[in-house]
Amino acid sequence: MKVDARTLEVQRLGACTVASGISGMSFVEDGDRVALQSDPMQLRRELEGSGEISALEKAGPRARIYFDPPKLKCGIITCGGLCPGINDVIRAIVLSLYHNYGVRSVLGFPCGFEGLTDRYGHTPMKLDPEAVSRINDHGGTILGSSRGRQNVEEMVDTLDRMNIGLLFVIGGDGALRGAQAMAEEIRRRGLKIGVIGIPKTIDNDICFVERSFGYVTAVAEAVKAIDAAHTEAKGARNGISLVKLMGRESGFIAMFASLASSDVNFCLIPEAPFRLEKLLPLLRSRLEKRRHAVIVAAEGAGQDLIGALPERDASGRLRLKDIGVFLRERILEYFTGVGMDATFKYIDPSYTIRSVPANAYDSAFCLILGQNAVHAGMAGRTNMVVGYWMRSFTHVPIPLAVSERRRVDPHGWAWGSLLTSTGQPRDMQ
Amino acid sequence: MKVDARTLEVQRLGACTVASGISGMSFVEDGDRVALQSDPMQLRRELEGSGEISALEKAGPRARIYFDPPKLKCGIITCGGLCPGINDVIRAIVLSLYHNYGVRSVLGFPCGFEGLTDRYGHTPMKLDPEAVSRINDHGGTILGSSRGRQNVEEMVDTLDRMNIGLLFVIGGDGALRGAQAMAEEIRRRGLKIGVIGIPKTIDNDICFVERSFGYVTAVAEAVKAIDAAHTEAKGARNGISLVKLMGRESGFIAMFASLASSDVNFCLIPEAPFRLEKLLPLLRSRLEKRRHAVIVAAEGAGQDLIGALPERDASGRLRLKDIGVFLRERILEYFTGVGMDATFKYIDPSYTIRSVPANAYDSAFCLILGQNAVHAGMAGRTNMVVGYWMRSFTHVPIPLAVSERRRVDPHGWAWGSLLTSTGQPRDMQ
Amino acid sequence: MKVDARTLEVQRLGACTVASGISGMSFVEDGDRVALQSDPMQLRRELEGSGEISALEKAGPRARIYFDPPKLKCGIITCGGLCPGINDVIRAIVLSLYHNYGVRSVLGFPCGFEGLTDRYGHTPMKLDPEAVSRINDHGGTILGSSRGRQNVEEMVDTLDRMNIGLLFVIGGDGALRGAQAMAEEIRRRGLKIGVIGIPKTIDNDICFVERSFGYVTAVAEAVKAIDAAHTEAKGARNGISLVKLMGRESGFIAMFASLASSDVNFCLIPEAPFRLEKLLPLLRSRLEKRRHAVIVAAEGAGQDLIGALPERDASGRLRLKDIGVFLRERILEYFTGVGMDATFKYIDPSYTIRSVPANAYDSAFCLILGQNAVHAGMAGRTNMVVGYWMRSFTHVPIPLAVSERRRVDPHGWAWGSLLTSTGQPRDMQ
Amino acid sequence: MKVDARTLEVQRLGACTVASGISGMSFVEDGDRVALQSDPMQLRRELEGSGEISALEKAGPRARIYFDPPKLKCGIITCGGLCPGINDVIRAIVLSLYHNYGVRSVLGFPCGFEGLTDRYGHTPMKLDPEAVSRINDHGGTILGSSRGRQNVEEMVDTLDRMNIGLLFVIGGDGALRGAQAMAEEIRRRGLKIGVIGIPKTIDNDICFVERSFGYVTAVAEAVKAIDAAHTEAKGARNGISLVKLMGRESGFIAMFASLASSDVNFCLIPEAPFRLEKLLPLLRSRLEKRRHAVIVAAEGAGQDLIGALPERDASGRLRLKDIGVFLRERILEYFTGVGMDATFKYIDPSYTIRSVPANAYDSAFCLILGQNAVHAGMAGRTNMVVGYWMRSFTHVPIPLAVSERRRVDPHGWAWGSLLTSTGQPRDMQ
Repeated sequence: MKVDARTLEVQRLGACTVASGISGMSFVEDGDRVALQSDPMQLRRELEGSGEISALEKAGPRARIYFDPPKLKCGIITCGGLCPGINDVIRAIVLSLYHNYGVRSVLGFPCGFEGLTDRYGHTPMKLDPEAVSRINDHGGTILGSSRGRQNVEEMVDTLDRMNIGLLFVIGGDGALRGAQAMAEEIRRRGLKIGVIGIPKTIDNDICFVERSFGYVTAVAEAVKAIDAAHTEAKGARNGISLVKLMGRESGFIAMFASLASSDVNFCLIPEAPFRLEKLLPLLRSRLEKRRHAVIVAAEGAGQDLIGALPERDASGRLRLKDIGVFLRERILEYFTGVGMDATFKYIDPSYTIRSVPANAYDSAFCLILGQNAVHAGMAGRTNMVVGYWMRSFTHVPIPLAVSERRRVDPHGWAWGSLLTSTGQPRDMQ
Repeated sequence: MKVDARTLEVQRLGACTVASGISGMSFVEDGDRVALQSDPMQLRRELEGSGEISALEKAGPRARIYFDPPKLKCGIITCGGLCPGINDVIRAIVLSLYHNYGVRSVLGFPCGFEGLTDRYGHTPMKLDPEAVSRINDHGGTILGSSRGRQNVEEMVDTLDRMNIGLLFVIGGDGALRGAQAMAEEIRRRGLKIGVIGIPKTIDNDICFVERSFGYVTAVAEAVKAIDAAHTEAKGARNGISLVKLMGRESGFIAMFASLASSDVNFCLIPEAPFRLEKLLPLLRSRLEKRRHAVIVAAEGAGQDLIGALPERDASGRLRLKDIGVFLRERILEYFTGVGMDATFKYIDPSYTIRSVPANAYDSAFCLILGQNAVHAGMAGRTNMVVGYWMRSFTHVPIPLAVSERRRVDPHGWAWGSLLTSTGQPRDMQ
Repeated sequence: MKVDARTLEVQRLGACTVASGISGMSFVEDGDRVALQSDPMQLRRELEGSGEISALEKAGPRARIYFDPPKLKCGIITCGGLCPGINDVIRAIVLSLYHNYGVRSVLGFPCGFEGLTDRYGHTPMKLDPEAVSRINDHGGTILGSSRGRQNVEEMVDTLDRMNIGLLFVIGGDGALRGAQAMAEEIRRRGLKIGVIGIPKTIDNDICFVERSFGYVTAVAEAVKAIDAAHTEAKGARNGISLVKLMGRESGFIAMFASLASSDVNFCLIPEAPFRLEKLLPLLRSRLEKRRHAVIVAAEGAGQDLIGALPERDASGRLRLKDIGVFLRERILEYFTGVGMDATFKYIDPSYTIRSVPANAYDSAFCLILGQNAVHAGMAGRTNMVVGYWMRSFTHVPIPLAVSERRRVDPHGWAWGSLLTSTGQPRDMQ
Repeated sequence: MKVDARTLEVQRLGACTVASGISGMSFVEDGDRVALQSDPMQLRRELEGSGEISALEKAGPRARIYFDPPKLKCGIITCGGLCPGINDVIRAIVLSLYHNYGVRSVLGFPCGFEGLTDRYGHTPMKLDPEAVSRINDHGGTILGSSRGRQNVEEMVDTLDRMNIGLLFVIGGDGALRGAQAMAEEIRRRGLKIGVIGIPKTIDNDICFVERSFGYVTAVAEAVKAIDAAHTEAKGARNGISLVKLMGRESGFIAMFASLASSDVNFCLIPEAPFRLEKLLPLLRSRLEKRRHAVIVAAEGAGQDLIGALPERDASGRLRLKDIGVFLRERILEYFTGVGMDATFKYIDPSYTIRSVPANAYDSAFCLILGQNAVHAGMAGRTNMVVGYWMRSFTHVPIPLAVSERRRVDPHGWAWGSLLTSTGQPRDMQ
């Protein structure tokens, strides 16, 4: 992806003039950057061309900040579907605001953008260290969530009226676009309100964010469902099991869970289109050899085959057709056609996967993300998300983060490893 | 349940004349029994009446056995749906035959009763300590399974032709009836073949068997699904989650999982009928108070409400209508009717629950069950299952075990505790 | 064990005259009993002899109770070492008092008996449904604990002064003796204070209590340590691993965890004495055959071999010598002597085992125990513990419960199964 | 760390002239590289200085390889302490050799370098897909391991005599130095044997390797021990728990596990020295405020305080003094001195942590590492390890990898986050 250097600049509310109050800390300098990529030849070309290396701003505490902590009032909202680790992020934000900066006023607005309007009768929840103690033991979000956007002007009115200086938005693609719209409306009005996003996408598909929180936990849960699928497949004559996993446009969870399991024979993702005329005979030959087969399909895989008119949901996301139901029909039809008895089991573990608490790895990751979101917000950054890239935590402007989706590279090392381990052919079209 | 003493007698192939070869063991005496019940008043009444206390034969190794181990050939089959611990039982049977008795020939017949016929091209699998090493690390059954019965005469022909002296049938209600039919055909032909059942019913519904293997593991897995349901319900405004659990006629898993979880508000089981006119307003009032609700339903609950014509599957089991789908429709309809927005999530974790490996408790339980199945078979018992009752392992004649289903007593302590903890009213009709 | 019928009678504070207020409940009758044993011959003998069958009183809600809920003030203490499920029991007691009876005043006294004195500056904690919400997600005890007894008169003074009507003591052998002493002092003074125990013994060694809470969870954790031990043993040439498990006088955890694991070669428990002259050559022969060995030892095993003078700790318990350290020395010495290189790994997982949260099984079990403790207390019972026996929850007088320890029967089915699966000889003396 | 470009060159056995046989794969070009670092300013400086950017060779399959698969014989050894994922790596190597390249001869040499000598009577184990099926379900290593080196000439003699063309060494620092010595001896003799390392260091301390396999799993297990420690600490008046974790010279596990847990108050690592005069009063003040405290110490922390003469073990590693035992003494002494009762619990979970199976994340990681080790070996690389750096899998020359240890940067973002979350002061000296 070609990125213009200007699109990497993070928007600021103004100059940082207050001492941050974090004692004994190693501060990040304002000029600290992380290169967007690591290929020496491209780096050289870039430098010789524009004279610059495209790079993201580094995250971390700054010696001088924009807001005066005792006067600052902050808000947090959580939007969209559940994902492991949301409560960890909420907790990290609250604890960092309190203990690192001395901010004393933090509100949680219930049910996503709904909480920033008057329509649903939601009352903001006071968040302090006591209120967030142990919330990370549980999945989901203590604030509740909702899909879809509310009226941007109305939401900014609320922030303004309630005197919120800093809003943290934990949400996916749709919510981040909402946050961007708010940041733009805020700028238009000349308000001094920062909007910091923490990208929540279990699909791991945000641009320039190497890994989103909850993803590692989700993969681990997905592997449990694949284990069950494998056991079921082996337990029946010509048993076929299909596990549908998250991944509307990006097959990261399906791919990585298939790599982590040793039992997947076919992994279907949106990035690697397939035709039934290829898949079905391969499946038959697998059954003839081993008498059972396990298929993993990202929910966005094979949508072209189902061939339906696209509709969109409240978040503006495409309504997908159920690839699992589609494949079940086609597969059973095919095996009846060729005169083979087959048993088909369809497992859709989505709710179970997305609602577990974060595992150790993600807990630590959420903690650091939350802390860095606070550092960024306190330093007057706005209209950005915190991310992780090339071994550093970074600031990514929202417009850049949502410009397109990060997707599995069908020519990259990861998909190559997958083909190598499942034995499925590269070309199924 | 009133039980005739004669129905408690276990059928025998003949006199036990061979030394069992188990060294240093404490043997069970042939007369050792376990009372069917523990109420002193009823015990007294029974003794004063018939002069006898109804009791089950105790399981365990006998000093003298019926079969001569070096000459004995054994078979194992696994029938019906998966359940945690099947591989543990297979392993325990094989190891006990080998190490305790010196039997050297054990065959696993693939895919349940199918493996005892010629129709499906199955080849028996040789089972020895090497073949069963570590199989208990995995759920499912290494032998494969199938539903439904095969021709009894054909199956007995196979046993006779292959010179099988002892057949172990790991299966549920339907399979045990099949085993009974085989034992009767064997007796009719005057063959010397023992048929020993190990009751496999994740629903925990076998008569005079206090607990069936895999049940404790299943409850633990079910609680994880309830956790997810609770997290989802709390994550949305007026979130309602429904978890459908095993339990066609007996609600043990649903009840016990609800007790083990602290998050269930309504537990619906076949033994405690309910009407929608009661349930829906209670649900509404719960939402008004707490904004979320969790429902657990055994799959056999509320079948009378769905009001469909009964059909039966290959195992002769009633085809149930999907209570989850039914309730989703009715509940959403109701809340639309009363003008409340509600979010409904339906979780059906059946495959994931039944395919996990046995937990520590069930592993030990399966081990002892398998050992006692071997002890019973070697001692010439037939047409019986091994069970656990009143702190002892026992022999239960198959006709007694399948005479009716063990069901939750809606006036017993367990359902009482459930009502006490969920707060749902005893009477929902 | 021979039990005098009088010792089975549960002490009562007085007549039950208040309606219990539990609506729609199936009540237990005062005469409901559960036979102490299930052997038909002994039952007959008992009945023909004394005319009575020894039986425990059944637990459960009564239609009439002793205390008037709105006026009642209750206390809870937790004593001794940690055990999975303590918080579940605390929660169940508080919820049952609140929701089933309408009691509004419940206090948690910190750190066991210490909390009933003035010496340590402890302040009682108000317990209500809010305070106990989710505490069962964590191991340990929210009240804190301590070992050893305090002055009985002083503690009864506190109860009297604070107007406590009902005290729940969650504790082991030592604490129950303390509770008994308090109940006797209370009777002496003619006070109307009930003392109800919930037996907490991870060793599972309370008389006439089939299973104590936390035990099933502890076994599952113990198996994980055995897995690690097995992996370590296999990872080295002539690797020997030893896992020391709880069990001062009773080897239930060691035995059951060994049954649940498939990897234990020698299980050492206090009930089955052994000599090194037997064990060491068996160990050598195991190594020669398989190159690795796993030993599980209950902490009380082999104390006679270490031969030390007995000391007692604050709870009055024998200070045990470390069997693991002892065996390590002797085993390494022996293998050096016979010229074999051996690697020894010693794992002591006690803290990790006892501090985990209760698993699903134990959670449900703790819930029902706690509810029944409340039912018993409200019905005016005192100086008793709640237990589980022969498929029923029961009341056991404390003097009976602590009269001796329940121990593994070296001639019973469980130890027989263990010998059968490990292959270790019955006689190691 | 300043790295000379020449030290980044990977040694090669010769020209690659055989078609790799991997069909439909995206191959890596020989010139593909990954920059060592990502700071744009330093990258610019480097380019302007030497005209080159320091970079590692990328891992992955090559279109042309060095060995002719049908003629190639490979060996695998596993050295040093256990670590989650070793069996995953073994399995990945075997499967990749078989399925991707068609190599049919792979041997596992038992017990590390011992297996390459005649002294211990080890027999190599034939490894094929059947032999490695499901080995990844278990921790440890199916090959066994040992510490310390054997005679290099003797080991190379064995490889030469047995006609091994490619040796995979799964091991830590010490083993990699051994592998380097072998590669140098092989070069000296002009043999055509490749030596490829897969760095196994649960401490995560290999240079230019962002993360070593098993580390994420180890952190998750470590958090469980910290949970137990926290529960124990809260369960007693003035309870202090200390968990000792891996980390001889690098505190990554201790730091990351402390970040992942929310319960650690003091994290002690070798990179951040401390004095007791600072720690003890902080601990006291923590107890006075909260009545419990949790300390995590890497095993290499505070060695200067214990002040002992350094000894080395068979692997040439420093024999550490036990920081846990040392702190227990000093802490109890201190609290006795200031007249405060404190309870101290010491948990050393090392064996349990290192012997668990890899979790999902590490399983996938091990798989890809193993595949890339095979790709590297087949492409004639030698004297190198596979690693992961800046989002790519890479080749790292062994001399570079062992040149020094990767350590926690006390001024980096990770330690900064840790200080921020535990609240411990940066300066404890």
